[in-house]
Amino acid sequence: MSCPLCTGDGGLVVVRTPKFRVVRVIDEPAHPAFYRLIWNDHVAEFSDLQAPDRQACMDAVVAIEQALRALLAPTKINLASLGNVVPHLHWHVIARFADDSQFPAPIWAVPQRSAVPRALDLAAVDARVAASIGPAP
Amino acid sequence: MSCPLCTGDGGLVVVRTPKFRVVRVIDEPAHPAFYRLIWNDHVAEFSDLQAPDRQACMDAVVAIEQALRALLAPTKINLASLGNVVPHLHWHVIARFADDSQFPAPIWAVPQRSAVPRALDLAAVDARVAASIGPAP
Repeated sequence: MSCPLCTGDGGLVVVRTPKFRVVRVIDEPAHPAFYRLIWNDHVAEFSDLQAPDRQACMDAVVAIEQALRALLAPTKINLASLGNVVPHLHWHVIARFADDSQFPAPIWAVPQRSAVPRALDLAAVDARVAASIGPAP
Repeated sequence: MSCPLCTGDGGLVVVRTPKFRVVRVIDEPAHPAFYRLIWNDHVAEFSDLQAPDRQACMDAVVAIEQALRALLAPTKINLASLGNVVPHLHWHVIARFADDSQFPAPIWAVPQRSAVPRALDLAAVDARVAASIGPAP
């Protein structure tokens, strides 16, 4: 069965490493500050990784979180590795704002209000994420 | 403002360490194989932890995941650190089954069906989690 994260990037690629890539999610307009770390190999669960890979993975998740916090000052960061629909390891890193469409519920809950458009400098977040994680150019 | 994870355990305590505790969630009947790692200090975000603490935290999350996989063979493991309502660092570790009330949607989505009661040996999971994470008795 074809896996969309094996055959496609899964979003706008921000940085690639030999082990994983980070993409910005562009099909969730109510939550624009939404990144994913996608492991390159097709493994389903976080515990399928060996310890050094788990650490590299979470170091990168934290780098994304830190970029979002530093540049956007969100109300909260949400981290999740679910993969029920696409069981190929990926981590969601989402900046949440108190006036977003679901807050304080998870983004997968029923919307409570219309999304408030926000001027977010996502290009700056992309650049900081790439600089934090990527190999030197 | 009072924090319920500072003043209470947050579930049925499975194991305590100097840095965190693991509890089994007992108020989500549709998802009984649901554990939480709750950091003892009141910090909001995963990136508020220093690197050694982050590693200890995720090593324990993985130990919970491994116990769930080994003993319950779930369809998928879901990991999440959200904390929008209670911004005190905690990780959800949830065994998902293909016939649970929301699968494949996240547990926070609208139920798609009634929960199928399952005979799960959660006491065995508790014991394995405690043995994996806890200090020797």
